[in-house]
Amino acid sequence: MFDKETYINRRKQLQQKVNKGIVLLLGNQQSSMSYKDNWYPFRQDSSFLYFCGIDLADLILVIDIDNDREILFGNDATIDDVVWQGPLPALFELAEQSGIAQSEKLSRLKSYLQSARPSTVHYLPPYRPEHYDIIGDLLEIPHLQVESKKSVALIKAIVSLRSIKSEAEIAEIEAAVNITNQMQLAALSSAKAGDTEAHIAGQLQSIAIAGGGNLSFPTILTTRGETLHIHYTNNPIVPGKMLLCDCGAETERHYAGDLTRTFPVDQAFTQVQKEVYEIVLNAQQAAAAALKPGELYRNVHLLACEKLVDGLKQIGLMKGDSHEAVLNNAHTLFFQCGLGHMLGLDIHDMENLGEQYVGYDETITKSKEFGLKSLRLAKALEPGFVLTVEPGLYFIPALIDIWKAENKHISFINYDKLDQFRSFGGIRIEEDFVITETGARVLGETLPKGVSEIESFRKDILQTTPLIVPASRI
Amino acid sequence: MFDKETYINRRKQLQQKVNKGIVLLLGNQQSSMSYKDNWYPFRQDSSFLYFCGIDLADLILVIDIDNDREILFGNDATIDDVVWQGPLPALFELAEQSGIAQSEKLSRLKSYLQSARPSTVHYLPPYRPEHYDIIGDLLEIPHLQVESKKSVALIKAIVSLRSIKSEAEIAEIEAAVNITNQMQLAALSSAKAGDTEAHIAGQLQSIAIAGGGNLSFPTILTTRGETLHIHYTNNPIVPGKMLLCDCGAETERHYAGDLTRTFPVDQAFTQVQKEVYEIVLNAQQAAAAALKPGELYRNVHLLACEKLVDGLKQIGLMKGDSHEAVLNNAHTLFFQCGLGHMLGLDIHDMENLGEQYVGYDETITKSKEFGLKSLRLAKALEPGFVLTVEPGLYFIPALIDIWKAENKHISFINYDKLDQFRSFGGIRIEEDFVITETGARVLGETLPKGVSEIESFRKDILQTTPLIVPASRI
Repeated sequence: MFDKETYINRRKQLQQKVNKGIVLLLGNQQSSMSYKDNWYPFRQDSSFLYFCGIDLADLILVIDIDNDREILFGNDATIDDVVWQGPLPALFELAEQSGIAQSEKLSRLKSYLQSARPSTVHYLPPYRPEHYDIIGDLLEIPHLQVESKKSVALIKAIVSLRSIKSEAEIAEIEAAVNITNQMQLAALSSAKAGDTEAHIAGQLQSIAIAGGGNLSFPTILTTRGETLHIHYTNNPIVPGKMLLCDCGAETERHYAGDLTRTFPVDQAFTQVQKEVYEIVLNAQQAAAAALKPGELYRNVHLLACEKLVDGLKQIGLMKGDSHEAVLNNAHTLFFQCGLGHMLGLDIHDMENLGEQYVGYDETITKSKEFGLKSLRLAKALEPGFVLTVEPGLYFIPALIDIWKAENKHISFINYDKLDQFRSFGGIRIEEDFVITETGARVLGETLPKGVSEIESFRKDILQTTPLIVPASRI
Repeated sequence: MFDKETYINRRKQLQQKVNKGIVLLLGNQQSSMSYKDNWYPFRQDSSFLYFCGIDLADLILVIDIDNDREILFGNDATIDDVVWQGPLPALFELAEQSGIAQSEKLSRLKSYLQSARPSTVHYLPPYRPEHYDIIGDLLEIPHLQVESKKSVALIKAIVSLRSIKSEAEIAEIEAAVNITNQMQLAALSSAKAGDTEAHIAGQLQSIAIAGGGNLSFPTILTTRGETLHIHYTNNPIVPGKMLLCDCGAETERHYAGDLTRTFPVDQAFTQVQKEVYEIVLNAQQAAAAALKPGELYRNVHLLACEKLVDGLKQIGLMKGDSHEAVLNNAHTLFFQCGLGHMLGLDIHDMENLGEQYVGYDETITKSKEFGLKSLRLAKALEPGFVLTVEPGLYFIPALIDIWKAENKHISFINYDKLDQFRSFGGIRIEEDFVITETGARVLGETLPKGVSEIESFRKDILQTTPLIVPASRI
C-alpha cells in the first residue's frame, strides 16, 4: 500500500469528478481452477487497488457522494478462516488503513443502496462472470443489462486519474520494469538449443515471484514469434531459430512491467534475421524518439509502420510509396497489431474500462480496420502517461496464404519473395516509457537491444556455460 | 492425451452406468484476471479431460445416450484467433483425436438439446460462476436452480470411474510426484535464513513448469506452518523457525502430485521441534502402514489422531485416555483437519463432484463436528485409489485462546504447558499412496523424511553453499 493520505486524496478527487450519486467499487473474488476451493493466485481489481490499496478478496467500497460517506463492505474472518488462512486484520482495521471512516457487513450493502435512494449508482464495466451476478443482485437488474448500465461518468473520472502517473507510481512501475529486466537477462543468459521454452519460462516466473509479486501476464517465450500472444511449449528449442521473449513482472503493489526481446537461439543472428531485426529496431527507435506531450500516439504508430515498410522495401518484400502503403494498411500483413498500450496497475492499463475511453477521446475514434482496430492507444500524449513501444514484424503463413490468394495489395507486396519467409517467425522489440514535460524517458536499467550487443552477450554466455537441462528431465 | 481408445472406452463405460438421457460435459472457459483478455493459465475441467483429453477452452461434450451419439460442440478458430494465438486444429480434428464421431458449432447446442427431447440432461455441479450462466442458458433454468438440478446419477458414475486409477494413470501421478519431489529437494537445498519464502516458492514453481505442466495448487511455504492453507510472504526467513513446504506439480496431462515436508531453517531441529516432529512422523508411518483394501479411511484417520495424542501426552500437552480424547475431538486443538484426500486429475480429486460422493458412501456420512467435518475421505479403501496421508500438529494461538477461555476439554489438555508453544508454528508430513490388492505403495522416489535424514541433508547444504539472495534484491 501507499500511505493513507494517497488513497484519501484519490477518493476526494474521484468524488469531485463524479459529483453525485453513489460509486460502487467492486473488489475481486477468488477464482476457482478445477474445483471451487482450488484458487488461482488472487488478483485484486486494479481500480479498487488504486482507490484503497486493500489486496484481499470479497470487499466492496462504497463512496456515497450524495451523503459524503465512505464505507468498506466486507466480512470479518471466522475462526475457520483463521485456522485455514491465518489471522487477518478486522474489517474496520482494513478500512482504517485506507482512511475509510466506516465499515459494514457485506450483507448490509443491498439495503444500504436501497435506503440511500441515490440519484445514480455508478459502477465500472464487469469483466468477470461473477461481477454480473454481484451487480445484478445488488441493483436488481437482469444480467443482460449489467454491462449497458455501467457509468460512463465514473469510467471517465477514473481514466483521467489513473492515466497520469504520480512520481511514486512511476517509481513503482520502474521497479516492475527492473524485475522484468532481470527476467529478460535470465532468458538471454540461459536459452539454449535442446532446452525447452517451458524450462526458461519457469525461471522467468521464479524471478517475478522472488521480486515480491508475480507475472503481470502469462509469459510469451517462443520460437514461433509470429503468433502475437502464443505462450510456450514443452518441445526442445531448435537451433537456427530466434526466441521471442515478451514478459513482465508486477510488483507486490501490482504495478506492471512489460519488455520484449528477440534473440537468436545460437550465438549470432543469420544474415536475414539480422536484416529484419534492424528494420524493427529502426522503427522502435524512431517511434521512441517521437514521443512527446501533445503528439497523437496514433501518429507515432503510423510513423513506426512507415519505417517498417521502408525496411521491408529494402529487403524486397514490399514496394511502392511507404506512406501510401500504410494508408492502405498493406503493412498489416507483417504488423497486424498496435504499436503499444498504456501501462500501470494493469499490463494493458485500464483495458477493462474500455479502450474508447483509455486510448481514444472525443477527437479520435477507433478504426474498425484490420491492424488499426488493434491499436489500443491513439490519443494525444500527456506528461505522466506510461506506455509501451513495441513494433514487430510477423510472418504468419495462414495470413500470407489468404492475402496471396486474394492478390491483396499486390501493388505493395512482393508475394514471390515472401515464400522464403514462411518459417521465419516473428520479431518484436519493446520498451516502456514515461511521457515527460518535454519528451519521454525510457524506464528501467539498460538491456541488450542492438544486434551486436545481443550477439556479444549471447556469445559470452554460450561459450562459458554448459547446456542446461531441466531438473525433471535428468 | 492418452490414446483414443482410452477415451472411447471411458465414455462407453459412462454410457452404461448413466444408462439414459443426455450427458452434458462442460469444458472450462478462460478466466480473467484484471481485465477480460488478461487470462490466468487455462485449466481444463478434470472430468472433461478424463473423458476426452482435449485441453482447450470453450468446448462442450454431449453424450446422447438415448440416441447413441457423441458430439463435440465448439467453434473453429477465426483468422484473428490464428494471428493472436496461432494455428489450432479444426474442431472436427479435435473430435477425431478423441474418437468423437461428430462435431458441431457451439451455437447449435441449445437447439440440439431442445430437439433431442431427452428424458434427462445430466450435468455436474457448477464450480465457476460462468458454469451457472452456461447451464442456465442452455437448459433455460434460473441460476438459483442450476446447482440443485445437477445429476447425482452422473456424479456417481464418474466417481466410480475416476476413483479407480488405471496403471497408466498411476504412472502419470507418479511422474507428478517425482516432479514434486524435485521441488521439495529444491526447497530443502536452498532455504536459508535471510532469504524470502517467495524466492524459494518461485524456484519451486519454475521446476513445476519445466516439468511440462504447472503447480497443482498454490504453494504453501511458510514458517507459520500452523495455518493450514497459508501461502508465502516476502519477508526474510528468520533463524530458529521451521519451514513447512506443501507443494505439488501437475503434469502436462494434469495429473497431480502433493507432498509436504517440514524442516528447520537452521542445520538442525531444536530439541522441542524434534520431539513434536517425531510425534507427527510416528502418526504418519502408523497411518501409512494401516492402508489396505477394505479399511475405512476414517479409521486410518482416527488411528493417526490417537498416535498424535499418545505423543502429545508424552510431552505433557495432553493427558487422559488417547482413545477417549479422540472420541471427544480433544485432539482437534492440534490437528484441525483430515488425514488426507483422493489424488488424481485434481489435487483434491473430484472435490467439485461433492465429498459426500467421493469420500463417503451410503454406509458412512460426513460428520459436522470441528475436525471430522474437514475429513475429505472416510469410506472403505479399494485397490486403485490414490490418496495422501498427511497428519500434522498445528499450534494456532487464536484457537488456543478460544478453547482456553472456555476451559474446553480440560480433562485432556494441559493449557498451562501450552503457553510455550504459542509461537511454535506447525508440522505436517505428507506422502502419496496407491492402494494395492494387499496394502499400499508409496508413490515417487525417496525424499528425506526422518529427523536425522533431514538434518544431515540440511547440514551438507548449509555448509557448502553460500547464502542465496533473490536476484531482484541484489
